[in-house]
Amino acid sequence: MVPVLSPEALAAQGVEARATYARLAAAGLKLDMTRGKPSPEQLDLAEGMLALPGNRDHLTESGEDARNYGGLQGLPEARRLFGAMLGVPPELLVVNENSSLAVMHDCIVWALLKGVPGSAAPWVGQDVAFLCPVPGYDRHFGFCEGFGIRLIPVAMREDGPDMEEVERLAADPAVRGMWCVPTYSNPTGATYSEATARRLAAMRTGASDFRLFWDNAYAVHHLTENRPAPHDILGLCAEAGNPDRAFIFASTSKITLAGAGLAFFAGSKANVAWYLEQAGRRTIGPDKLNQLRHTRFLRDLDGIHRHMEAHRRLIAPKFEAVLEALDQRLGGLGLARWTEPEGGYFITVEMLRGSAKRVVELARGLGIALTPAGSTSPHGKDPTDSILRLAPTYPSLAEVRAAAEGIALCIHLAALEADGLERAA
Amino acid sequence: MVPVLSPEALAAQGVEARATYARLAAAGLKLDMTRGKPSPEQLDLAEGMLALPGNRDHLTESGEDARNYGGLQGLPEARRLFGAMLGVPPELLVVNENSSLAVMHDCIVWALLKGVPGSAAPWVGQDVAFLCPVPGYDRHFGFCEGFGIRLIPVAMREDGPDMEEVERLAADPAVRGMWCVPTYSNPTGATYSEATARRLAAMRTGASDFRLFWDNAYAVHHLTENRPAPHDILGLCAEAGNPDRAFIFASTSKITLAGAGLAFFAGSKANVAWYLEQAGRRTIGPDKLNQLRHTRFLRDLDGIHRHMEAHRRLIAPKFEAVLEALDQRLGGLGLARWTEPEGGYFITVEMLRGSAKRVVELARGLGIALTPAGSTSPHGKDPTDSILRLAPTYPSLAEVRAAAEGIALCIHLAALEADGLERAA
Repeated sequence: MVPVLSPEALAAQGVEARATYARLAAAGLKLDMTRGKPSPEQLDLAEGMLALPGNRDHLTESGEDARNYGGLQGLPEARRLFGAMLGVPPELLVVNENSSLAVMHDCIVWALLKGVPGSAAPWVGQDVAFLCPVPGYDRHFGFCEGFGIRLIPVAMREDGPDMEEVERLAADPAVRGMWCVPTYSNPTGATYSEATARRLAAMRTGASDFRLFWDNAYAVHHLTENRPAPHDILGLCAEAGNPDRAFIFASTSKITLAGAGLAFFAGSKANVAWYLEQAGRRTIGPDKLNQLRHTRFLRDLDGIHRHMEAHRRLIAPKFEAVLEALDQRLGGLGLARWTEPEGGYFITVEMLRGSAKRVVELARGLGIALTPAGSTSPHGKDPTDSILRLAPTYPSLAEVRAAAEGIALCIHLAALEADGLERAA
Repeated sequence: MVPVLSPEALAAQGVEARATYARLAAAGLKLDMTRGKPSPEQLDLAEGMLALPGNRDHLTESGEDARNYGGLQGLPEARRLFGAMLGVPPELLVVNENSSLAVMHDCIVWALLKGVPGSAAPWVGQDVAFLCPVPGYDRHFGFCEGFGIRLIPVAMREDGPDMEEVERLAADPAVRGMWCVPTYSNPTGATYSEATARRLAAMRTGASDFRLFWDNAYAVHHLTENRPAPHDILGLCAEAGNPDRAFIFASTSKITLAGAGLAFFAGSKANVAWYLEQAGRRTIGPDKLNQLRHTRFLRDLDGIHRHMEAHRRLIAPKFEAVLEALDQRLGGLGLARWTEPEGGYFITVEMLRGSAKRVVELARGLGIALTPAGSTSPHGKDPTDSILRLAPTYPSLAEVRAAAEGIALCIHLAALEADGLERAA
């Protein structure tokens, strides 16, 4: 991967890199690029929500009191608004509390303890496996690991997971589910192509109760003027004769307020009935005042898009700063490649095999916190030790630039070390 | 149970009761006494919360941004406030979303799939039974029924469950838990005595991982000037050498806003660590803005007590109206007895065996909705068919009075029918 350079040229690079590292280390940075958290300025965009719904404003559009118990599926106006956002009919959407992760967790525990529509028996006690496009999202893996579900990695491409591999593996009856982040995938930013979505909807699966865990976390989180519409995965599954195949998840955590948003479940009629039956034992109903707060503030799909454009104005420059810093130090060296996402929250960097852990360690020496190497793979173990996920949204633009320069430097240094010349020197 | 009356006297009662029933039926009432819901006037008491935390007010007392992710255990100030309410140290309290039912559900699914501290294995696949004081709360039973947990009824007394029976049954290793509503129990209103709490904390159990599911739903929901402090069940369990025995649950659903309150989990250090480990896979954190909203509004324990006095002024007259109506028609007849609760949300009426279903049916004929007969027993089956739960908080005072008069009448009629005279006539 490294182009042939003369020993002298390499040595000169090493001298410069080590000097820069020493200078940065002395600067005592304290930068965090670990998690996909909105910045305070992004949260300020939802400032208007902090005093909503407001005095005496507690009636829904049908005149019900949003303060009281009930309304398990969510307010019709909230389901209409977020159904439009996700390309799902309101009657197939459920509005939950603040965490889509929690909604996924609950689907998994209910699948384990009760089974899903189409299950011959509850999943617990059986050999259950999920397909995981890698690089992927550590918290998706976390549930499965916690509940003893086997994780089978599948390579992630620019148009979604490697479908040849997916189709081959899904034929195994033990494979009951698959994690998908179809739009601006966490962490590569790749968006599934229509063809990928169609193949996922139509493929033959060994298990009759196989589910796509379709986490559309970044459906409207565009970084460019393009606004690809979400795939109509429910329609595609129905068309292919697999109407109950997809569980859709999403939230407003990165639209309105990270800790105080709304989370959604959507699925076929049978899946929604199943979900509501389980959820109805768990709770008397969701926080409908927070649903009013959201509908009062965002109003309609245009309101959501306008709001997301304000996010874009804040975060797109941070993504650009990272890409610039990577390009400036590493461009043309052949030591690393990285994604240039058109949406979502992450940039993924692939560096020389066996060097990601070292890069995290070197960055720590500069006061830059990175997500642990391996966290984009099941069980936190990346066999290639080459993938890092960068999350540029939370720090300020100046901090992001400084962090990205530091990270690019560490990738460079680790590559020079790996080349053997630096270690020997 | 019925005092000896002359056939003539009974016939006269029957003539009057049937005439009154016909008159009421013609009035076309539409009254709902089914669920323990706060009235709109009670929700108005929390009106001030609808515009909280308010513009730019999103920092916690330690200066953290309550809008963002994180803070799994809840804000320290919220834990202090509600820890004081429940008699639990803040470090042993967890603040969750809006539903204590959901917290209980999650504890059960995690116990099933992972086990609790002290479990030799996850509960799933084993014969698992819970003790249920009866009359009890249908939603408690609902989980267990849904997940195949056996429910063993135990008689409820004025000072808590029949402890002889509880101790005998708890010796069975299959018995892994027990539902307890220690203060103003749902639905009898009974408060466990100190002696009962001590025996529950200290009793020998067959299972090493036995848990009291201690649902302190009505800890501060007094209907009189008396304010019994919550039992220190964590302290009693620790003292008895069973430090991990109690899982405490509670919420502000009937303090602030029924659908938009906060729910709590509390337990020993080991139980809290276990809970947070599971919850940390399920969610990145709770809605901390709602926690700020609550601490800003209620401020301190005095604030909670003042707020609950305002509730009392609204609902105590409704309880009195029910008791008056029952006494007026049924007093001295020996046809029914009822609780006179000093707190909580319900009045329980015990009528002649085999007549509760008929009373519900008769009431329906008057346009009065009652919780189905049997709902206070596991599986909705009351073998005595004699218990009804009345929930007087939601309707207006005039409606409650009308409903209670109607219900008393139906109890009377059903008893006359049961006596055979009316059916024969």
